[in-house]
Amino acid sequence: MKATILHGSGDVRCEEVAEPRILKPTDAIIRLAASCICGSDLWPYRGANQITEPMAMGHEYCGIVEEVGSAVTSVRPGQFVVGSFCLSDNTCSHCRVGFQSSCVQREFMTGAQAPLARVALADGTLVALAEKPADDLIPDILAVSDVLGTGWYAADAARVQPGSTVAVVGDGAVGLMGVLAARQMGAGRIIAMSRHKQRQDQALEFGATDIVSERGDDGIARIKELTGGIGADSVLECVGTEQSMSQALKSARPGAMVGFVGVPHGVQLDGQFLFFTQVGMLGGPAPVRRFLPHLIELVLQRKIRPGKVFDLELPLSDVAEGYKAMDERRAIKTLLRL
Amino acid sequence: MKATILHGSGDVRCEEVAEPRILKPTDAIIRLAASCICGSDLWPYRGANQITEPMAMGHEYCGIVEEVGSAVTSVRPGQFVVGSFCLSDNTCSHCRVGFQSSCVQREFMTGAQAPLARVALADGTLVALAEKPADDLIPDILAVSDVLGTGWYAADAARVQPGSTVAVVGDGAVGLMGVLAARQMGAGRIIAMSRHKQRQDQALEFGATDIVSERGDDGIARIKELTGGIGADSVLECVGTEQSMSQALKSARPGAMVGFVGVPHGVQLDGQFLFFTQVGMLGGPAPVRRFLPHLIELVLQRKIRPGKVFDLELPLSDVAEGYKAMDERRAIKTLLRL
Repeated sequence: MKATILHGSGDVRCEEVAEPRILKPTDAIIRLAASCICGSDLWPYRGANQITEPMAMGHEYCGIVEEVGSAVTSVRPGQFVVGSFCLSDNTCSHCRVGFQSSCVQREFMTGAQAPLARVALADGTLVALAEKPADDLIPDILAVSDVLGTGWYAADAARVQPGSTVAVVGDGAVGLMGVLAARQMGAGRIIAMSRHKQRQDQALEFGATDIVSERGDDGIARIKELTGGIGADSVLECVGTEQSMSQALKSARPGAMVGFVGVPHGVQLDGQFLFFTQVGMLGGPAPVRRFLPHLIELVLQRKIRPGKVFDLELPLSDVAEGYKAMDERRAIKTLLRL
Repeated sequence: MKATILHGSGDVRCEEVAEPRILKPTDAIIRLAASCICGSDLWPYRGANQITEPMAMGHEYCGIVEEVGSAVTSVRPGQFVVGSFCLSDNTCSHCRVGFQSSCVQREFMTGAQAPLARVALADGTLVALAEKPADDLIPDILAVSDVLGTGWYAADAARVQPGSTVAVVGDGAVGLMGVLAARQMGAGRIIAMSRHKQRQDQALEFGATDIVSERGDDGIARIKELTGGIGADSVLECVGTEQSMSQALKSARPGAMVGFVGVPHGVQLDGQFLFFTQVGMLGGPAPVRRFLPHLIELVLQRKIRPGKVFDLELPLSDVAEGYKAMDERRAIKTLLRL
């Protein structure tokens, strides 16, 4: 089959590889309904990580079960399933308290920018739908797997409450999903920080009530101004740089929580600063598995349309262009037809 | 009157000063029922802060109102009152969400190791009791003002839940009050980290179920062992050093919260470490005002006896010995008779 392989910085190819097969009795093989490129795929694409051997890319997926290992009991061939980018047993102590992304058996999904993919820990990871969803809902269901689940976790970790004021730092796909999540959780005011007209419009469509286009001290001042000098009750940090984290912490009121889901790169935090600003933090890889049943239900009821975050659609054979468009910020998120 | 003045590192004296007087219409003057020395008083005593002029020491207090400014409406002379070490208006946006320690008008109390003290923002800060408490309850009521309120906030910020497992880092007075707070909040297991027999015994008396005397990696391993490899659901960081913060973060399970109330000295946190351990944090100066009514009630009903944290009692004239005993860890906390 043709699959997506990263060979080095800026060098991603759609090329022939062997089909995945069951390696452990707890595995499943699924035939993907669609695939996509994640903002986090750009870190290795841009050379932030050393690439020592070709990497099978892709960790967002939904589709039909082809085959299951002998120990798999909760899903069967023919079912339409969705899973998280974090593979988890969903039975360990961390899973049981809703932190499946720190499962003691955790693995990270790979190789999902391809027609077929192997999913380890299938029983714990996959959620089966009653039936195959309507075709137009496939992008929405696919979004649940990571980008929506991650934005949702940012809002959950930031303890968004009905009526509260939320600031979202980052206008990438995750930030936009954070806006959607905050809206669903009943936030009264959602301030999206964005300098790009198209992304501002998307944020407004997903539920933002205010746009702040300033950055740095000016951006913080603007948020303070919009909140009567107080700061936001919850802040979603969806980037992962020193600047974005600083922006998030300084935009929050004392006692607020910052939910941070952008993998921090070069971020150092001063203990005394955190103490006296009195802003709380909780982040990490999103435990999407916790939210899957609820998010799937919202999609199937058409209450949310997270698939609108895809603004570029390409055949898998053009995956290199998909990476390039996202790298150059011409696209927010690329859907890959298989 | 005689009051406590810090002149330089290790040089604290009980000496004659002018009596405090009303400076603003929102002030009150109170006659203290007792006073005490705080662990945080040891920072300047030990020279951690530059002392450029003599400092009037003491920020924990309860006693009878002597006089109020013209704008004070909620307390009157003759009433027995308690307040927080953070003076707050209790009406601003930060106060209204329970973060009075970040009040927009916040001041820090000073000069309370003395028979009389001025309390600014009296209406917002002071809580009046229906009557003067029994003499034997004075140490308990005094403890509410800071040390208990701070331990309570640590437990609140760490989101201690009924039945949960709590680890307390720090066996000073605040740590011991954190144990008491966790017990009151219904924690199922309370692991106190302490190497000192007397403090271990105190921790057990306040409600600890387990003692860990190891430190560093050994201490973390022991907590993991006690929690089936998982880590604690909530951790109270009551010291403020790099080592204690590291111990706290590494003792927590993913998704846990660390409530940190020791003023961080030289603590730097790595963003990626926080991300992948997935441990949350909330700290800062405790908003004791939020908890005052509840804590006073618990004391008056004799459900808690936080005053047991005082293990040395001295007349104010011997305040220098009180500091010395705490500095040398011969005493946990010194009560000063006035």
